[in-house]
Amino acid sequence: MNDFETVYLDDKTRKLVILDQTRLPNEITYLFLNDPKEIWEAIYLLKVRGAPAIGVSAAIGLWAILARERYSSKEQFFSRLHQMVEYLDSARPTAVNLSWALETMEQEALGHRDFSVDGILQVLHDKAVRIREDDIAMCKAIGEHALTLVKPGDGLLTHCNAGRLATVKYGTATAVMYLGQERGYHFHVFCDETRPLLQGARLTAFELHQAGIDVTLECDGMSASAMRKGLIQAVFVGADRVAANGDFANKIGTSMLALAAWRYHVPFYCCAPSSSIDFSTASGDGIVIEERKPEEVTDMWYQAPMAPRGIKVFNPAFDVTDHDLVTGIITEKGIARYPYDQSLRRMLG
Amino acid sequence: MNDFETVYLDDKTRKLVILDQTRLPNEITYLFLNDPKEIWEAIYLLKVRGAPAIGVSAAIGLWAILARERYSSKEQFFSRLHQMVEYLDSARPTAVNLSWALETMEQEALGHRDFSVDGILQVLHDKAVRIREDDIAMCKAIGEHALTLVKPGDGLLTHCNAGRLATVKYGTATAVMYLGQERGYHFHVFCDETRPLLQGARLTAFELHQAGIDVTLECDGMSASAMRKGLIQAVFVGADRVAANGDFANKIGTSMLALAAWRYHVPFYCCAPSSSIDFSTASGDGIVIEERKPEEVTDMWYQAPMAPRGIKVFNPAFDVTDHDLVTGIITEKGIARYPYDQSLRRMLG
Repeated sequence: MNDFETVYLDDKTRKLVILDQTRLPNEITYLFLNDPKEIWEAIYLLKVRGAPAIGVSAAIGLWAILARERYSSKEQFFSRLHQMVEYLDSARPTAVNLSWALETMEQEALGHRDFSVDGILQVLHDKAVRIREDDIAMCKAIGEHALTLVKPGDGLLTHCNAGRLATVKYGTATAVMYLGQERGYHFHVFCDETRPLLQGARLTAFELHQAGIDVTLECDGMSASAMRKGLIQAVFVGADRVAANGDFANKIGTSMLALAAWRYHVPFYCCAPSSSIDFSTASGDGIVIEERKPEEVTDMWYQAPMAPRGIKVFNPAFDVTDHDLVTGIITEKGIARYPYDQSLRRMLG
Repeated sequence: MNDFETVYLDDKTRKLVILDQTRLPNEITYLFLNDPKEIWEAIYLLKVRGAPAIGVSAAIGLWAILARERYSSKEQFFSRLHQMVEYLDSARPTAVNLSWALETMEQEALGHRDFSVDGILQVLHDKAVRIREDDIAMCKAIGEHALTLVKPGDGLLTHCNAGRLATVKYGTATAVMYLGQERGYHFHVFCDETRPLLQGARLTAFELHQAGIDVTLECDGMSASAMRKGLIQAVFVGADRVAANGDFANKIGTSMLALAAWRYHVPFYCCAPSSSIDFSTASGDGIVIEERKPEEVTDMWYQAPMAPRGIKVFNPAFDVTDHDLVTGIITEKGIARYPYDQSLRRMLG
C-alpha cells in the first residue's frame, strides 16, 4: 500500500505540496508550488478541495510565495503580504476556511511586525505548520469519539468525501476508519459513489483503498440493500453546516441514506468540526441549497451524453437531513445526542 | 416532437422492426430484421429490452424468419419452426416473456397444422400482431386505473424504465403519463437517472421528452429533495416480480425512493401486468436478487475509470420494496391496496 499526503509544507524545496485531486483515482501526482498564479489555480481548479484542506493550502502557499521573494523594506514585505492574501482569497470566494486561514496568517505577521522580515517569515512558517497540525488534531479527536461507538469487524458506510483528501489527515467521517485500522479493528467500509460528481468513487474509495482498508464501492441507491443484508453496523457522514436544532446540510443523497439507516435500525452519525455548527440558523429550513449546472448530471467525464440534449435537470448540490434521523453529532469536543438544541450548546460550552 | 415505435411488424418489407436502444439517447436508428442471427443478437445485445418488448419482438421475429424462406414440405416447415423457437429462446435464457411468446407462437402453428404452409404463416402473422396489440391494451388499462389517482398539473416521479421502450406503447409506470398527456393533464414528470446503467437518463427521459411531456432528470439521491420541495404528488414505478404479500422487486434504488415517498407523504404506486404477481413467493424475502459485474459501476461508457482499479463493488441489480411502503399495486385488472395478501388474490379472481 502506498501512503500519500493531501497537503504539506516541504522544508527542503520551501514549497507548498499538494496531491492533484483532479487526476485521481488514476494518477498520483504531487504539485510543488510557490508561484502565486499556480497556487491560485490549484485552489480554483479544485486540484485541492475540501474546506479544511483549502485553508491549510492557502496558509502554506502564502508562506511559500513570500519566502521565495526578496524585499527592499519591511513596508514592501507587508504590502506584498496583503496583496497575496487578497489574491489567494479570490480563488474560492465562498470557502470560509480559505479566508479564515489567510486572515489568521496576516494577523500573525502583524503581531510580530517588530521582527526582521526573516523573523516574520519564520513565524509564518511555524503558523502554517500549526494550522495544518491543528486540523490533524481536530480530525483525530472526532475519530477518537467515533471509535467509542463501533466495534471491531463492523461494516461502516459513508457518503461523498469527508475524508483525508478533504482535510490533512484522518478526515472527519473517515477518522474512525483510519484510527480503527491503526488499532486493528478490521472494519468493512462501504462507500457510496455519490452522484453526480462521484467524490465517493474517485476520492473516498481511493484514499481508503490506498490505506489498505477493506472498502467496497456501491451506487447511492444500493445502500438500503446493503443495510437490509446486515452488512452495515453504522453510518458516518460529514456536514457542510449544522443548524442549532441538529438538522444538517451535506452532499446530496445524505438524507436518503439517513432514511434507509432509520428503516434498518442502523445508527447514523454526522461528523464535523465544531466550527461547522451555526447557532444563527435555527433549523434546516434556514439553509439555502445551491443548485448546480445540468451538465454535471447529463455529461459524464470524457464520454457521449447519457441523456437527451437540452433535457431539464434538477441538480441540488446538498440536501438537509432532519435531526430526528440522526443518532449523534460528533465534533472534536464530543458526541451530541437528541435533543440537539440543548446538547450542541452544552458541548460547545 | 418525433414519435417512435419500440417494435412492430412491417407488412411492406415483411420484417421485424425495432428501435435500436443501444444507440439511445443520441441516435434514433431502426433495425429491419428477418435474419435469425441478427434477431438473436438484437435480443442478446439489448438492442431491444424490457420483458414485454422482448416477447413481442420474438413473436414477430419468428414469423419474419419463417416467412422469408421456402419449404419443400410441411414437415420441413415445422422442423424449421421448432429449431428457430429454440434458437431465439437461447438469446436471454431468464426472460419469461421470451419463452412464453415463442411457445405461444409454436402452439398456434401446431393448432393449425391442417392449413397449408402459407395459411399457417398467415395465422402466425396474425398471432404476432395480436400479441403486440394485447401488450398495448394491457399497458393502456394500467394507465386508465392510474389516471384515477392523480390530477392535472401533478408532479410525477418514476425510476428506471418501465416505459414504452420496455413494452410496445404506453409502458407500465409511464402509461398514466402518456394517457394524461392525450387528455391535457400537463404533468411535470421527474425521472431518476437510475445508476448504474442509467436507464432513466438514457431511455425514460428520452421517450417522455420525445413525446413532448415536460420531463426533468435527476440523480437517484435527489428524489427526497424533490419531494421535500413539494415538487412530487405521486410516484409510479414498475416491478419485475410482485410477491403474494405485496412486497415487490424492481430496479435497484426503488426501495429508497419508497422510503422517501413515505417520509414526505407522497403516494407510491407499483405498476405491473397481473402476470408479474407470483403467488408462489410469499414475501420479498423469497426473491433472489441477482448481483452483477463491478464494471457496471466503475467503468462508465467510453471514459476513464472513475474508481480505483480492482476496487470491490456491491452491485445488486434489484431491490425489494416492502409492501407497507406501497400505497397501491396497479395491474390491468385494477388497483390493489393493503392488505395485499387479500386484495391481490381478489383482483386476479
